[in-house]
Amino acid sequence: MEKLYFASDYMETAAPEIMEALAGLAGKKFTGYGSDVISESARRKILAAAGALEGEVYFLVGGTQTNATVIDTMLRPYEGVIAASTGHVSVHEAGAIECGGHKVLTLPAKDGKIGAADIDGLAGTYWNDENHEHMVMPAMVYISQPTEYGTLYSLKELEEISAVCRKWKLALYVDGARLAYALSAKGNDVTLKDLSRLTDVFYIGGTKCGALLGEAVVFPKKGTVPHFFTMVKQHGALLAKGWAAGLQFDTLFTGGLYEKLGKNGDETADSIRQALDEKGYVQDVRNSTNQIFITLTHEKARALSEKVEMGFWENKGDNVVMRIATSWASTEEETEKLIALL
Amino acid sequence: MEKLYFASDYMETAAPEIMEALAGLAGKKFTGYGSDVISESARRKILAAAGALEGEVYFLVGGTQTNATVIDTMLRPYEGVIAASTGHVSVHEAGAIECGGHKVLTLPAKDGKIGAADIDGLAGTYWNDENHEHMVMPAMVYISQPTEYGTLYSLKELEEISAVCRKWKLALYVDGARLAYALSAKGNDVTLKDLSRLTDVFYIGGTKCGALLGEAVVFPKKGTVPHFFTMVKQHGALLAKGWAAGLQFDTLFTGGLYEKLGKNGDETADSIRQALDEKGYVQDVRNSTNQIFITLTHEKARALSEKVEMGFWENKGDNVVMRIATSWASTEEETEKLIALL
Amino acid sequence: MEKLYFASDYMETAAPEIMEALAGLAGKKFTGYGSDVISESARRKILAAAGALEGEVYFLVGGTQTNATVIDTMLRPYEGVIAASTGHVSVHEAGAIECGGHKVLTLPAKDGKIGAADIDGLAGTYWNDENHEHMVMPAMVYISQPTEYGTLYSLKELEEISAVCRKWKLALYVDGARLAYALSAKGNDVTLKDLSRLTDVFYIGGTKCGALLGEAVVFPKKGTVPHFFTMVKQHGALLAKGWAAGLQFDTLFTGGLYEKLGKNGDETADSIRQALDEKGYVQDVRNSTNQIFITLTHEKARALSEKVEMGFWENKGDNVVMRIATSWASTEEETEKLIALL
Amino acid sequence: MEKLYFASDYMETAAPEIMEALAGLAGKKFTGYGSDVISESARRKILAAAGALEGEVYFLVGGTQTNATVIDTMLRPYEGVIAASTGHVSVHEAGAIECGGHKVLTLPAKDGKIGAADIDGLAGTYWNDENHEHMVMPAMVYISQPTEYGTLYSLKELEEISAVCRKWKLALYVDGARLAYALSAKGNDVTLKDLSRLTDVFYIGGTKCGALLGEAVVFPKKGTVPHFFTMVKQHGALLAKGWAAGLQFDTLFTGGLYEKLGKNGDETADSIRQALDEKGYVQDVRNSTNQIFITLTHEKARALSEKVEMGFWENKGDNVVMRIATSWASTEEETEKLIALL
Repeated sequence: MEKLYFASDYMETAAPEIMEALAGLAGKKFTGYGSDVISESARRKILAAAGALEGEVYFLVGGTQTNATVIDTMLRPYEGVIAASTGHVSVHEAGAIECGGHKVLTLPAKDGKIGAADIDGLAGTYWNDENHEHMVMPAMVYISQPTEYGTLYSLKELEEISAVCRKWKLALYVDGARLAYALSAKGNDVTLKDLSRLTDVFYIGGTKCGALLGEAVVFPKKGTVPHFFTMVKQHGALLAKGWAAGLQFDTLFTGGLYEKLGKNGDETADSIRQALDEKGYVQDVRNSTNQIFITLTHEKARALSEKVEMGFWENKGDNVVMRIATSWASTEEETEKLIALL
Repeated sequence: MEKLYFASDYMETAAPEIMEALAGLAGKKFTGYGSDVISESARRKILAAAGALEGEVYFLVGGTQTNATVIDTMLRPYEGVIAASTGHVSVHEAGAIECGGHKVLTLPAKDGKIGAADIDGLAGTYWNDENHEHMVMPAMVYISQPTEYGTLYSLKELEEISAVCRKWKLALYVDGARLAYALSAKGNDVTLKDLSRLTDVFYIGGTKCGALLGEAVVFPKKGTVPHFFTMVKQHGALLAKGWAAGLQFDTLFTGGLYEKLGKNGDETADSIRQALDEKGYVQDVRNSTNQIFITLTHEKARALSEKVEMGFWENKGDNVVMRIATSWASTEEETEKLIALL
Repeated sequence: MEKLYFASDYMETAAPEIMEALAGLAGKKFTGYGSDVISESARRKILAAAGALEGEVYFLVGGTQTNATVIDTMLRPYEGVIAASTGHVSVHEAGAIECGGHKVLTLPAKDGKIGAADIDGLAGTYWNDENHEHMVMPAMVYISQPTEYGTLYSLKELEEISAVCRKWKLALYVDGARLAYALSAKGNDVTLKDLSRLTDVFYIGGTKCGALLGEAVVFPKKGTVPHFFTMVKQHGALLAKGWAAGLQFDTLFTGGLYEKLGKNGDETADSIRQALDEKGYVQDVRNSTNQIFITLTHEKARALSEKVEMGFWENKGDNVVMRIATSWASTEEETEKLIALL
Repeated sequence: MEKLYFASDYMETAAPEIMEALAGLAGKKFTGYGSDVISESARRKILAAAGALEGEVYFLVGGTQTNATVIDTMLRPYEGVIAASTGHVSVHEAGAIECGGHKVLTLPAKDGKIGAADIDGLAGTYWNDENHEHMVMPAMVYISQPTEYGTLYSLKELEEISAVCRKWKLALYVDGARLAYALSAKGNDVTLKDLSRLTDVFYIGGTKCGALLGEAVVFPKKGTVPHFFTMVKQHGALLAKGWAAGLQFDTLFTGGLYEKLGKNGDETADSIRQALDEKGYVQDVRNSTNQIFITLTHEKARALSEKVEMGFWENKGDNVVMRIATSWASTEEETEKLIALL
């Protein structure tokens, strides 16, 4: 039997619609650096979907790059960004944020999430500390939707966080690397329009949601940061063939494709979650998106890994936590095979 | 009549062979971050072509990003990089090198090139200056092949520069953003194997030479820099779908495609150069690659620009220098139309 | 009654021996940047005291500057420094370490200290994580002696930490901003020679130990870092009148002055500690050096602050922790007045 | 005969008035980080002398540190600073400006100076370049008064530069490391009040003008930069014993001492200049401040250096340029001995 692949959501090429759209451009010419008509079309579609017609959209290539560029651009050198201790910017970006000169001010995470009260506490402690001028000033909150653990902020939670951010003049930034899986998840009540209303900047993930590459940074308010284009260039994030990134989003935001792709990941994960429960597996974090975390003995993990490619998550005592990730491309057939194996 | 496009060599999508190869991968799955089989195949082909079987190859996304990552990685904080005053790293990277903490030590350029004697002079002046410990230490030489002006270093010039670099313990780095057009140019005598023999690191350009995206960094000697992978990640230059970059080079380095694409650009440019001479145009810099620089009055430039998209190069007194760039995709038909217009 | 000052140990000018030595130099001339005879003499005395005759000593100006310079110099861009969550580099340097591009990898502190086991755990988790190449590599351990809470590492603890550092190839760096108060403390068993034997670099604090300014960085092994002088210059830490810093240490390391000054701070603090116990005050952290932390109601803190200048430490529930710091200059008279007030 | 010292203006300890003031503080206590009464007094005196009662003054320690802190603080990451190719920030700060992420955009210098027309040209070229968003944006002009070659900007020149800066929205920053020698020079017509009126920020040099250490940064307009204090801390430029720097300026700005010290340097240099002319020496740059540059054969330089400590400036063909620097402390006796030796 061929090996099954559930290691991550960026293993497949790209959604068929994108592959076709790309093939259809052979022999065409476009102006450079995102000034092309396809990127322009994609920007308009995104702003419409986000209910932010006066906003700005930029297409970058990957997630770490996007986080570093947005954070460097929005913070002054004496400012830091608040994030969950398990946040991507805290752990898995090889120090890209610090490389740009900024401290990540971590808060303890609960299933990948941080709460308004903890943010309020951190900001209050800073401003009430008589020595705060010797410290890094909190100036931004970074959260991911869904989080690195697949969990979701509810609209209420996001509104509370947004309110605390405005209270303390903290910019609110949402990393939507896997946003498609959030938008389509059971129980989700946060829309793109909510993100526009409640945040200062967010990005709509492409790479993990069916695109070949690309992340779309949305500033709901025009002019939020001056010269963002030049900062994108300086961060090595500017594609000469900008249309290649624009095309991804122009396609994803046509006919509801983005949500549709997300839904496939969520639903196949739901089937697996149900099977895991039935078979008595220990699921570390409960969520309704495309990532599943199971605790296994090393022996069991090894045996299973011979047949299914899963992602190493972390060692946990004598056991190991493995991640099963479905995606926009997961098929019923694969899912059934996996369930049969479990 | 439809407008002609000669503004740059990154306006077309990608070489047909790449577009087809890409389409052929629909529905396939690959491991992430460049660990996939296609990237591995591309690396082997490049190292074979470069005569550096023991070397290392990494695929990054774009040129500015590649320069910043390589330079940051190879220099210590007190070290700087020597470059032509007209070099891409000196002028057109929005300060990406300085953003990484390094000074670009500029030398006057002649048609985009610097010479071994000037490098020797700069290094000698530094080390003979009694106050040199208060100064930035020259530690690397950056040159581009072809240069930003389309000119080429001869093998003799490159050997001289390499010798000076070894004399002063300067790393030698060649930016090959348009390397295809150099390798195939009339009169060129510098091969990939020469680059392996004479430099410490170079990159083979994809974006401007027929690829959708991607630049291939080659370290002829294994272990030149420790933890380069992590530095690529930190610089936001690591593609999750690394196979997408690998595929470009796996295709370009099959059946001599890379040189073939370069040759098309060079030859179409040759035709235009000849026509320009016949019609009495002033060509600013003579070269045998795919870029042509002509000095026009603003009036003439405006008139011509209505029919041909060219690149603004620089203002020069009352005139303007415009760039005509052919590419791997330029057709005889377009070239003839352009010549007819001139 | 005049107000009493126990806010910190850098409120007094400088030890009388230093003030006199300085006055005695009026009209003299010295070569620049630490190449002078006084600095040379100070370096010899320090290396003798530290039992590191083949080592190197550099004089910098202040603590944050010293930490940033040492850490930036010893780490590669992908490396981070392990520190207590309460460490000076973690909290009170306004992001100077991140400004240099490095992440501070924090460990929970117990009374300001971290332990060998926790360091071992952090390093092991990193190297056993299959994704560690996407993470910041731990490469240095930063501890302070005494800590920010006045506590001391015992020789056994330091030896254990040193052994763990060697196991994982972590550089060990000791911040000795208040080292005089450690060397002279009751129960201390860590000498300068132990620091030379067990660390890769440490600094002997001047500013808080009786000097006008200055911190002495000691590399027990010559050649530990290349071009440290240039990095000191780049960090703005190089005094043109380097003799001014050298003089501080030449004086402090003559006739056991450094330890003598430390002893005065420790002993006056001991008297206050005893009085606080007798009067039933809550002392937050027990130590034998020159810092005392007491928990007070805000009302009590306000009342006391009218008569005694203390340092704000942190808010703690409804109470406030205040710091009483004695110093090399604290007099029996002041101490008695303070005790009478309590 | 004892050797004569004319190598630089930072070889002597400090002006007698400062040495006495310092000695007079023995046993006193001050609050930390520049919040003390002496620093406050010094700030008031400086603002009065500069005719900028609503401005801000900060005391830092040394010149490179001051330049790096001011420039980092006032520029956004995509912005660069225009300076003479011979400027201190361009050559002799070990890359401190680039370490902070900023490019130094150099203009050719004439005797250390740059002119309004060249600044206008550089800014115009940038903004008229169609690709300027890919380049570093000029945002500040750095000049030194006197320059590294001892020359002075006239009031007319400074007004022209200031006007060009306002035209292009460039901040104007004057490095006054040796400002005392400018203020007192024959023919100088630029006052502190002119600097307040025409610049955005300047610093009044202490270290080279009779202080033990310290440079006073003056922002003529309050609130020019937010959180400058924190940035000073982050740059390691914040003295715990801030009064030590404040004291220097409180003394220098009492009874016209600063100008008096400058005058001594200028007048002793004038005597030497006259003698050099009479004896037929070649003086490289003519100025009326405290630095003299003479071109000597290496043989002559060696012979003279045995009796007089001079500063190496640069190699020039087969000859060498040496610097003779007088200072606030140079005596008539030393000057006469030097003249006799020449």
